[in-house]
Amino acid sequence: MINIVVAGPRGKMGYEAVQLCERDQDLHLVAVVDSKHNGRTLNELEGFGNQEVPIYSDMEECFSDHKVDVLVDLTTPAFGKKHMEIALTHGVRPVVGTTGFTDKDIQELTRLAEEKELGAIIAPNFAIGAILMMKFSQLAARYLTDVEMIEQHHDQKLDAPSGTAIKTAQLIATERKEKQQGHKDEKEDLAGARGANFEGMRIHSVRLPGRVAHQEVLFGGEGQLFSIKHDSLNRRSFMPGVKLSIEHVLKLDTLVYGLENLID
Amino acid sequence: MINIVVAGPRGKMGYEAVQLCERDQDLHLVAVVDSKHNGRTLNELEGFGNQEVPIYSDMEECFSDHKVDVLVDLTTPAFGKKHMEIALTHGVRPVVGTTGFTDKDIQELTRLAEEKELGAIIAPNFAIGAILMMKFSQLAARYLTDVEMIEQHHDQKLDAPSGTAIKTAQLIATERKEKQQGHKDEKEDLAGARGANFEGMRIHSVRLPGRVAHQEVLFGGEGQLFSIKHDSLNRRSFMPGVKLSIEHVLKLDTLVYGLENLID
Amino acid sequence: MINIVVAGPRGKMGYEAVQLCERDQDLHLVAVVDSKHNGRTLNELEGFGNQEVPIYSDMEECFSDHKVDVLVDLTTPAFGKKHMEIALTHGVRPVVGTTGFTDKDIQELTRLAEEKELGAIIAPNFAIGAILMMKFSQLAARYLTDVEMIEQHHDQKLDAPSGTAIKTAQLIATERKEKQQGHKDEKEDLAGARGANFEGMRIHSVRLPGRVAHQEVLFGGEGQLFSIKHDSLNRRSFMPGVKLSIEHVLKLDTLVYGLENLID
Amino acid sequence: MINIVVAGPRGKMGYEAVQLCERDQDLHLVAVVDSKHNGRTLNELEGFGNQEVPIYSDMEECFSDHKVDVLVDLTTPAFGKKHMEIALTHGVRPVVGTTGFTDKDIQELTRLAEEKELGAIIAPNFAIGAILMMKFSQLAARYLTDVEMIEQHHDQKLDAPSGTAIKTAQLIATERKEKQQGHKDEKEDLAGARGANFEGMRIHSVRLPGRVAHQEVLFGGEGQLFSIKHDSLNRRSFMPGVKLSIEHVLKLDTLVYGLENLID
Repeated sequence: MINIVVAGPRGKMGYEAVQLCERDQDLHLVAVVDSKHNGRTLNELEGFGNQEVPIYSDMEECFSDHKVDVLVDLTTPAFGKKHMEIALTHGVRPVVGTTGFTDKDIQELTRLAEEKELGAIIAPNFAIGAILMMKFSQLAARYLTDVEMIEQHHDQKLDAPSGTAIKTAQLIATERKEKQQGHKDEKEDLAGARGANFEGMRIHSVRLPGRVAHQEVLFGGEGQLFSIKHDSLNRRSFMPGVKLSIEHVLKLDTLVYGLENLID
Repeated sequence: MINIVVAGPRGKMGYEAVQLCERDQDLHLVAVVDSKHNGRTLNELEGFGNQEVPIYSDMEECFSDHKVDVLVDLTTPAFGKKHMEIALTHGVRPVVGTTGFTDKDIQELTRLAEEKELGAIIAPNFAIGAILMMKFSQLAARYLTDVEMIEQHHDQKLDAPSGTAIKTAQLIATERKEKQQGHKDEKEDLAGARGANFEGMRIHSVRLPGRVAHQEVLFGGEGQLFSIKHDSLNRRSFMPGVKLSIEHVLKLDTLVYGLENLID
Repeated sequence: MINIVVAGPRGKMGYEAVQLCERDQDLHLVAVVDSKHNGRTLNELEGFGNQEVPIYSDMEECFSDHKVDVLVDLTTPAFGKKHMEIALTHGVRPVVGTTGFTDKDIQELTRLAEEKELGAIIAPNFAIGAILMMKFSQLAARYLTDVEMIEQHHDQKLDAPSGTAIKTAQLIATERKEKQQGHKDEKEDLAGARGANFEGMRIHSVRLPGRVAHQEVLFGGEGQLFSIKHDSLNRRSFMPGVKLSIEHVLKLDTLVYGLENLID
Repeated sequence: MINIVVAGPRGKMGYEAVQLCERDQDLHLVAVVDSKHNGRTLNELEGFGNQEVPIYSDMEECFSDHKVDVLVDLTTPAFGKKHMEIALTHGVRPVVGTTGFTDKDIQELTRLAEEKELGAIIAPNFAIGAILMMKFSQLAARYLTDVEMIEQHHDQKLDAPSGTAIKTAQLIATERKEKQQGHKDEKEDLAGARGANFEGMRIHSVRLPGRVAHQEVLFGGEGQLFSIKHDSLNRRSFMPGVKLSIEHVLKLDTLVYGLENLID
């Protein structure tokens, strides 16, 4: 049983983290840290069922009152660094999902974690499915060098291609022998048909109502097609990444930045 | 049992039509018409197994020697019209897969068919799967008006989008209320990401080794996605369309142009 | 502009119907009928934004106060019939999404609609995508007779195959020449691998967390594959069916049961 | 430029290997070993174009006449071991695609390779796409433990599930925490709907004309779906695996069994 404190329980991610602790028998939610509602319990707030978990507005007080193994911090970039320092100082291992850390922040926090001999994880992206898609795509591109991507999102998305598609292409490019794909004399009878060109790879962005967030990476070879696909429907998809981080942070004695560095 | 003559048995389509007759118990191949090998039998030619079917170079002689229900003509545009006239004159119903007929040709042949009270079918495309895809897409677009197409072909294809994709888009456009899809402020960070724009619909062309000929038409609506897909691997995929034409031509007493007009 | 009254605005479907009227410029929501909150306005209820639409508990009073074209009834089976009678009596055309009508109910309501020369629609299922999937599958099975279905749902679903899969198979069976598919000597090394057998067709039920409600119908032929797919994510997917019904009911002068009878 | 000898050029795989050498500028086919046609050249045989490559029936003579880097042996199990011994003895690195090696064979050949300080590869399966699918699936199952497989093959296949599906399931099982998937009270209204049960995972086998050889591995998690798919159309799909082996065998100084041990 791992003793957990969740910071930011009323945020979308924080809410899901509280539910994760409730569903998962290995995780025990001992308290939450919230800027409001100090001294009350979670079950008094709307939407939290009957969990009589105490709410603290002061993190230090929380860590004094309870024996805590892991802090899951899902607040905002303004608090991420301070919360990590408080946790490490109190012997609590932090798993932090906020962004906005500078290189200097990370150096300082790494030094602190190592000094205390405690694990710490900063994960700007907990979507383990997306991370698997990127890592596997990168590896597959060594063997099958013709690559096209089709990403599909709802029709209210403003940018194309998606950030995930571009990041995937960049990672693939580190392993793939650069080449211009398709026939050298191919031509578009309608402009844009062949999609965006990223170092010879092609990226296609579909925008339709009814879609949420999907990406497929296609690798073609003579007589075969290999593909990797990820569909993400909602924030609950981040929870396996949170769970994985909680399990790993207990075994670490330094800071790890990015979930991809936990997966091998 | 339907008595069949196949014209053009050594062509790719003709070869498959001969195989179709061999596989299908309802079809009886009584003879073939071929510019070469007059007087020999099919089993003497390489690749035709042990079918002792007589070969004629003169179609009229063939129809004099045998009682024939249907001529399946898979020769070339140069012969299509003449072969139809010979067939109708001899009381044989023609199913013709060649292209190149003018409007005047079709008018004259229709008059001849009706005069003889015989069915006749000209089908520039026997791919029944593709025709179903086009017809159903046209109908679906009445109800779900956000449409994107993804067509995938081998990387040696020169044109994009494919002819089938453009024809599908044209058919959809006859039923779909025109609209610009996607967010009105959407922008491409890499040109071409959003594909080709056909009256507000989007078409994406994937070209990869390992692909043959594939098309998916996607219809998005709030909370749902509806899609129709066709994969075509080889010419054998045309045979159900040939079979369908043979069955229908027996019930017709005029000329029908295009397989889509047999399907309802 | 079509004047609409929605009955049952606090139910899941009713809520979406109110939102539909707000989004769609052709639809004007003049009032709602709700068993509670008589005399108040929608904007006073949580979740309904700033729509100052009056709430009536008495439907007859509502129709006396307002000129109404269409009643959209999304209440419960207990009220469906009575609401239709009130609507038709007041010259309002009903579109009803409840189930539980007996054959006798439908006969009586049809007589009433025809007497008043008013359209009326009862639709136990507004999911237009699912209805297109079923209709098109039925038609495709005439031409491509090897059929397998893969339906995918979340892992909390108790029954397999899904009701939609079975209904689709039944509809296909009305058009498909019965045949046992697969090789006659095929054998399962692990029981169940080949799925459920429905008149020789095969149905496969996938149950996974992360799935919502999906169905794909696959039609195989020599050298080709044709498939139709529907993904349903939430109740908003029913709204195009509601809209279609509103448009059609204005042109009808009798009762139509089932959305499939509006689509041709 | 790598000097290659192909043994078994008239077999299906051997034929493709010869074509690979012709297409690929890094590979130079210096000779072939064939039980027939000794002393002739490849261009004299039907189907081999205009390659004036000498044919040897005696492998030792071939290696005496030419400076050879790699032997690509695609003959039959009866010859695999002997050919490897001849190659290693002559300083040629063997890449062997035959099966039937005993553990003792492999031990002896490993000893010989190490003694000669030469690389050697035995690959019972050159399908790199299938190997990537299996390796990635194994890894993904650590993080997403709900797994279903859908494999699709032509309707003449006798066994279900396919050998590849079972091998994939076995590999996944080494990493996945065993669990019974689906709802504990789920029931099949039609037997077989939920597919084959392999340690709680489910496998579904689709058999349709128009399919060749396809497999998709689906990993479900709350709010997400991750999947890996491989489509194999013909033997040419094995050539990237042959090429990879040729490149790797030059860097090895021992024997490696199985392509999966070259990929990391």
